[in-house]
Amino acid sequence: MGHDYQLDDDHFHDECGIFGIYGHREAANIAYLGLFALQHRGQESAGIVTALDGKQYQVRQMGLVTDIFKKPILEQLPGDIGIGHVRYSTSGGSLIKNAQPFHVTYSKGPLAIAHNGNLTNAARLRRELEAQGSIFQSDMDTEVLAHLVARSKGVKTIDRIVDALSQVRGAYSCLFMTGDEIIAVRDPYGFRPLVLGYLGDAIVLASETCAFDLIGATVDRELRPGEIVSINRYGVNHITPFPKTMPKQCVFELVYFARPDSIIFNQSVYDFRRRAGRILAEEHPADADLVISVPDSGLFSALGVAEQLKLPFEMGMIRNHYIGRTFIEPTQSIRHFGVKLKLNPVASLLDGKRVVIVDDSIVRGTTSRKIVRMLREAGAREVHMRVSSPPVTGPCYFGIDTPQKSELIASTHTVAQIAESLGVDSLGYLSIRGLRQAAGAAEYPFCDACFSGNYPMQMEE
Amino acid sequence: MGHDYQLDDDHFHDECGIFGIYGHREAANIAYLGLFALQHRGQESAGIVTALDGKQYQVRQMGLVTDIFKKPILEQLPGDIGIGHVRYSTSGGSLIKNAQPFHVTYSKGPLAIAHNGNLTNAARLRRELEAQGSIFQSDMDTEVLAHLVARSKGVKTIDRIVDALSQVRGAYSCLFMTGDEIIAVRDPYGFRPLVLGYLGDAIVLASETCAFDLIGATVDRELRPGEIVSINRYGVNHITPFPKTMPKQCVFELVYFARPDSIIFNQSVYDFRRRAGRILAEEHPADADLVISVPDSGLFSALGVAEQLKLPFEMGMIRNHYIGRTFIEPTQSIRHFGVKLKLNPVASLLDGKRVVIVDDSIVRGTTSRKIVRMLREAGAREVHMRVSSPPVTGPCYFGIDTPQKSELIASTHTVAQIAESLGVDSLGYLSIRGLRQAAGAAEYPFCDACFSGNYPMQMEE
Amino acid sequence: MGHDYQLDDDHFHDECGIFGIYGHREAANIAYLGLFALQHRGQESAGIVTALDGKQYQVRQMGLVTDIFKKPILEQLPGDIGIGHVRYSTSGGSLIKNAQPFHVTYSKGPLAIAHNGNLTNAARLRRELEAQGSIFQSDMDTEVLAHLVARSKGVKTIDRIVDALSQVRGAYSCLFMTGDEIIAVRDPYGFRPLVLGYLGDAIVLASETCAFDLIGATVDRELRPGEIVSINRYGVNHITPFPKTMPKQCVFELVYFARPDSIIFNQSVYDFRRRAGRILAEEHPADADLVISVPDSGLFSALGVAEQLKLPFEMGMIRNHYIGRTFIEPTQSIRHFGVKLKLNPVASLLDGKRVVIVDDSIVRGTTSRKIVRMLREAGAREVHMRVSSPPVTGPCYFGIDTPQKSELIASTHTVAQIAESLGVDSLGYLSIRGLRQAAGAAEYPFCDACFSGNYPMQMEE
Amino acid sequence: MGHDYQLDDDHFHDECGIFGIYGHREAANIAYLGLFALQHRGQESAGIVTALDGKQYQVRQMGLVTDIFKKPILEQLPGDIGIGHVRYSTSGGSLIKNAQPFHVTYSKGPLAIAHNGNLTNAARLRRELEAQGSIFQSDMDTEVLAHLVARSKGVKTIDRIVDALSQVRGAYSCLFMTGDEIIAVRDPYGFRPLVLGYLGDAIVLASETCAFDLIGATVDRELRPGEIVSINRYGVNHITPFPKTMPKQCVFELVYFARPDSIIFNQSVYDFRRRAGRILAEEHPADADLVISVPDSGLFSALGVAEQLKLPFEMGMIRNHYIGRTFIEPTQSIRHFGVKLKLNPVASLLDGKRVVIVDDSIVRGTTSRKIVRMLREAGAREVHMRVSSPPVTGPCYFGIDTPQKSELIASTHTVAQIAESLGVDSLGYLSIRGLRQAAGAAEYPFCDACFSGNYPMQMEE
Repeated sequence: MGHDYQLDDDHFHDECGIFGIYGHREAANIAYLGLFALQHRGQESAGIVTALDGKQYQVRQMGLVTDIFKKPILEQLPGDIGIGHVRYSTSGGSLIKNAQPFHVTYSKGPLAIAHNGNLTNAARLRRELEAQGSIFQSDMDTEVLAHLVARSKGVKTIDRIVDALSQVRGAYSCLFMTGDEIIAVRDPYGFRPLVLGYLGDAIVLASETCAFDLIGATVDRELRPGEIVSINRYGVNHITPFPKTMPKQCVFELVYFARPDSIIFNQSVYDFRRRAGRILAEEHPADADLVISVPDSGLFSALGVAEQLKLPFEMGMIRNHYIGRTFIEPTQSIRHFGVKLKLNPVASLLDGKRVVIVDDSIVRGTTSRKIVRMLREAGAREVHMRVSSPPVTGPCYFGIDTPQKSELIASTHTVAQIAESLGVDSLGYLSIRGLRQAAGAAEYPFCDACFSGNYPMQMEE
Repeated sequence: MGHDYQLDDDHFHDECGIFGIYGHREAANIAYLGLFALQHRGQESAGIVTALDGKQYQVRQMGLVTDIFKKPILEQLPGDIGIGHVRYSTSGGSLIKNAQPFHVTYSKGPLAIAHNGNLTNAARLRRELEAQGSIFQSDMDTEVLAHLVARSKGVKTIDRIVDALSQVRGAYSCLFMTGDEIIAVRDPYGFRPLVLGYLGDAIVLASETCAFDLIGATVDRELRPGEIVSINRYGVNHITPFPKTMPKQCVFELVYFARPDSIIFNQSVYDFRRRAGRILAEEHPADADLVISVPDSGLFSALGVAEQLKLPFEMGMIRNHYIGRTFIEPTQSIRHFGVKLKLNPVASLLDGKRVVIVDDSIVRGTTSRKIVRMLREAGAREVHMRVSSPPVTGPCYFGIDTPQKSELIASTHTVAQIAESLGVDSLGYLSIRGLRQAAGAAEYPFCDACFSGNYPMQMEE
Repeated sequence: MGHDYQLDDDHFHDECGIFGIYGHREAANIAYLGLFALQHRGQESAGIVTALDGKQYQVRQMGLVTDIFKKPILEQLPGDIGIGHVRYSTSGGSLIKNAQPFHVTYSKGPLAIAHNGNLTNAARLRRELEAQGSIFQSDMDTEVLAHLVARSKGVKTIDRIVDALSQVRGAYSCLFMTGDEIIAVRDPYGFRPLVLGYLGDAIVLASETCAFDLIGATVDRELRPGEIVSINRYGVNHITPFPKTMPKQCVFELVYFARPDSIIFNQSVYDFRRRAGRILAEEHPADADLVISVPDSGLFSALGVAEQLKLPFEMGMIRNHYIGRTFIEPTQSIRHFGVKLKLNPVASLLDGKRVVIVDDSIVRGTTSRKIVRMLREAGAREVHMRVSSPPVTGPCYFGIDTPQKSELIASTHTVAQIAESLGVDSLGYLSIRGLRQAAGAAEYPFCDACFSGNYPMQMEE
Repeated sequence: MGHDYQLDDDHFHDECGIFGIYGHREAANIAYLGLFALQHRGQESAGIVTALDGKQYQVRQMGLVTDIFKKPILEQLPGDIGIGHVRYSTSGGSLIKNAQPFHVTYSKGPLAIAHNGNLTNAARLRRELEAQGSIFQSDMDTEVLAHLVARSKGVKTIDRIVDALSQVRGAYSCLFMTGDEIIAVRDPYGFRPLVLGYLGDAIVLASETCAFDLIGATVDRELRPGEIVSINRYGVNHITPFPKTMPKQCVFELVYFARPDSIIFNQSVYDFRRRAGRILAEEHPADADLVISVPDSGLFSALGVAEQLKLPFEMGMIRNHYIGRTFIEPTQSIRHFGVKLKLNPVASLLDGKRVVIVDDSIVRGTTSRKIVRMLREAGAREVHMRVSSPPVTGPCYFGIDTPQKSELIASTHTVAQIAESLGVDSLGYLSIRGLRQAAGAAEYPFCDACFSGNYPMQMEE
């Protein structure tokens, strides 16, 4: 799996995962499992809202899914329909009030929203709503959506949702739930994934297919960019009310976010990464003795690199899986501490060797630098770093919690300067051309703005 | 002190206590102490909101004040102005979302509200607001207030608050706080108390004066019914914008809710209770050997009863103070269990004696019945119960969490029937006339609707 | 009840309470209730050991009884025989390893010991045992007892216990439990109480009768000093193997430790205290307007004082019952803080009055001094302190956690000096003669060494 | 790393890890880090004992190292010498009293013991000690050691330890600590590893070298079987007092227990496993499309298998790292649940393929069976299982928590029967000859009794 939240000083953060289930008498339990499988998409808070007889029940807390949802908690969530959410920061601070699903009542009854993405005009909409007398209790874009739905003149919930969504810009894969209906939405660009499936007679929705694997559901299909699917007692209905546009699916989901065992954007994440590794090695061959990776996120492209270079792949760094949520930094005299707690090089393997180390991306460069030094201290004679995505040169406005541009090492340094800064013997990034090739050459319905600078839209402020 | 939340099956529940401080660099710490002194007014949740440089900081949690506000928590609450709240149920369930102070942002910035009371037209206002597109995230009346303030066309905050309050009916003592101002309000009937004082240069507000005693503040005066006091950098300003009406201060605050060491409604709670005891004994003398009370709430009137009857007062029941929040009921074979955990009669004192037992009120009668049986099992030859308030015949709509009318023993039973049901040799309630006499005969600015049925207004639904 | 663990800087600490039950299928549940009723005897840690089919099960933790023993914990304690313990410090620090019942296995199988008291030759015995190769895992005297039992050549458990006890000196009321037997012991002086009773067919043992009241057991009788009772399948057997001596029951149990609703040393604690108050007032009359007490410990003697002086008794200080285990001291500028959190004087009652305030004892004087100042600040014109026990001039070696002699105000100050130090208008202690009279004049089987200096024995080091 | 405590129904359990440090002013902090790096050797409880000025300080708790040792806890552990322990079950139940280091005082002062291993004559020694009057407070073998040390007539601590150890049989790597000395021991067979190193001037001891890597210490050497090293103010002294015998180091440490980045028994664990994989593939070739492993424990031998078979190695199963300590089983209808929570096959990779799956060992077979079915459901056309150790046919008496013989699938089934039971197309175990070859052919100082039945000694009962 591509996630490693202990090393996050040098990685993007995934922001959210969403899950929905309609028509299963164990809705809360299944939602809990679905969220567990999506935990890599957000480890800060989690929540589930269920509905029974038109009334909603909710639990939202800070923490990991398995820590929050114990038996007595799940028993507080009756009903056969439910939506859930796991979250990392993005917009809105690390506070319980920003945990999702967002839950309100309004003139039509209860409404819960699980939202993955980021709106680029939320601040302006919020000001406009406030000017009309609205009050806000959280910092989330999602609260803007709730106000827009509540203020809409639409008669049916779906009309109100379409009305609301027609006013927002940006990235959103959303699950809306009333007392007896789920409405699933993917924005016209399709930035974030959202997949539809079946669990027996029940209908399930999830950010990634790995959630279906765990619960034994079968994948039906991914929602199309701009598609809205409503699920209620009358069945499943889908519409595409927004003007059609060229999709801009987030290529970083393939590069790093999604789990390698998921199928998103209609392709295998695993295959994408392995392919990216092969192309990377073609573009940047290395004369070396072995290929290792930064576990676990670089493992899959490293296999591709090793294959292409015809070099042995080795598990050259061992992870400690017992890292808790907080760790006492015990002494200043220990070098590379943050990384050492997590990773230890296998010195017997590396000693005297020319090593290719593969990672999926470099953001700030801090962790990479420490890793390179650890490898050298373990005896590596040469260190050749290969990165299975292009240099990250700009922030993301569509739901990924990237640092500011000034903190992105590639926004201020050339590749040669980065190589020197990291202390490597050679450094090779996958080219944007290579990235596009890995993602499927002919059509390219992807957003790669963080690499290319080609933003489909800008933040309004 | 008059509170005993372990015996609550037979008592009213106090709903809220509020506290505010303006102009003290330890605002959160002082608010914490103030809430601690008001803990008897609500043990379910507590919260503090402070403001610094126009920004608000909040902590709201389920639990007792001393359990919630530890040092690291208080350090999250900077600023020299703050309001706090302790809460028991009333409207809105036992959920964290219903903890106060209520906190929103709207067009004018942040707004926090600490509210003690209950609105009689909240449900209608809520429907009207929803019809205009408002969303609601809690079950509290207070959220209605926030919407009304936000939707007001008033330019200044105080104008908006006056505008909002002019639309609501019912009971409210409130503290509103912006980024740099506190506005304190008591409704025109003055149902709930609210006192103003000084702590050095700082201004403090509290439901009861006992909060001032703890922090060493001096009482200035009680807000008058209908008075609004705004406190900001320009000083303290007060207005009385609502039509004047006869005050209807809650006599049950004197009978049971307020701490006996508080001065509210401009009189000593202790003196009131002792006086009520004397009048009770005049109205219902008893030929007995000694007077005891249900501790601690009946102690003060029992002293008055004993004095009037010229009988010795004894501590005939001993309390166990170590009751935690939850208690495992271990076996069905133990009789009167709930009460036994809390109270034990002193058999050596009661054996063979004719006992007068004084309590402040009887609601359902369940606890009283168990106490009477415990006294008899301890050897009491006769048990004469005296109650220092009239029979409770109706629910409260103004912020007290009474059971429904059908559960009030005095709404369906005569005094003779109640006496038989409790198993006492005689039963005497304070008369309404006696209650009024105890509260001050000449003018009577009190609501005693739960005893008399004279409701100043009804719930709209 | 005579206990107030928040004011402990000026009180003795009770150290332990013990409880046993034989022959009840809910042994753990009943033991839990018994310990709950004895909680005032120790709030630091609690434990229960039960036995089933010759095997023992134990739970020992820091904290209050109701916090430790939740349903799943009690379910880990099967069996129809059990002993329990609540503990404050005395010998052995505040550590889990010092929680009781002490539990070991030795050549005869499992052995659990619940011990109330303090041995005066424990240090020497420990050194001797260590010299013979014994290891110690705690700091408790009780571990010495366990070693002595294990090393005894006695064939039957009871013989080993008699053998062990014949080697120790000091105070001990103990419950020993094997896999199927309970052996209850009171030392020859009978320093600590231990009462025997029946709960249906089951046999119960407790430090005080208030534990029987809660579970609905009937008191049979107090164990006699030097008596050993063994309870097993063959019935109840009692022996008195030690040389008979004049009993030295701890008079401080009557003065302060025991609950007022208990019968110990064959007398009512309540009656003792009330009587002590009357004698105190005879010895030290006062010309005053009213009598109040330091709640709750001084209430009972205050009633006696008021009766004797023919002055009204009033609840002049109100307690806050919501004090948690820890409290953030928020600001240095608030005076008398520790006491204020707990107690608040009723100013309306005291203003301009000459007040007699009654407490059960003065140890260091710190709290008393703060209380006197609070009364004066509340308006009291004169403050006359009356103490219902003699000056505490020496430490206790028999199980009470008193400060060292140098910290006892009465060991270094005359009564006149104490009066001046406390700031009272007059100060009167009960005389030793008065104490003896209150305890029953003719025979006097009590230890009052902390008042009189007449120690039945000394600590060996 | 070779550990995966979520899949433990089909794996051995590692029992203990030990760590010691002498002469570092941050002894507790360093011990904490050392234990963190050894966490894979025991996740049930952890403890640290330090010494300062002849006095010992201890913390022992259930739980993971990072959950137990927060800053305020570490601050309770002063001193520049300390030993620590992590533990899984083996002898003694999952109770806090069985947490280590074991800590006592005896005639010579305090003694702490951190023990990795299992004594084969502990039950007899315990009975003998009990017959001499010893009491036992835990179920651990280690308590026997403490008694033997305390009862020894030796004058110096080291003499007592030698005396004690000369009476025990079985497996033990131990750290003894007094108030100012550490004595490290490895039993004559050297079953468990124990390595000595330096951290600046401080001396460190650990079960595995990975603990040294984390703290930046340098490895000096492994203690020799039968060696005793004492470290005190006079320096480092070593003796080998026991009769020399052929070492019997636990080969399962190499196969599964130790971290792959450790050097133990003077060889690289990583290299051993890779080599075992190559030999396994030589012995049991397979005609297949790709090689995958059960992560993480099978990864290293899988690389060897893939190399030897000249097949691509793939990450065919993805782990979920967010499993907490407890997990709610939500529904019976989900198949292979326990394994699914942890592992998910990459269907896009496996579909239609002939798959070789490599694991390090098979104990009960339960997990393997579920994994095979998951692979088939993911589309694998053929499943060939290769196991990089021989069939486990007997329990371990030397400190590994294996199930009883009857639960070991290989003790009751032939390889053909196991293959059928697991549902694989072929099954190949490493031969004992291959194991010996992987471990170093010439001399073979290893115990492989669980595979070969050649026990160096038996349990006495």
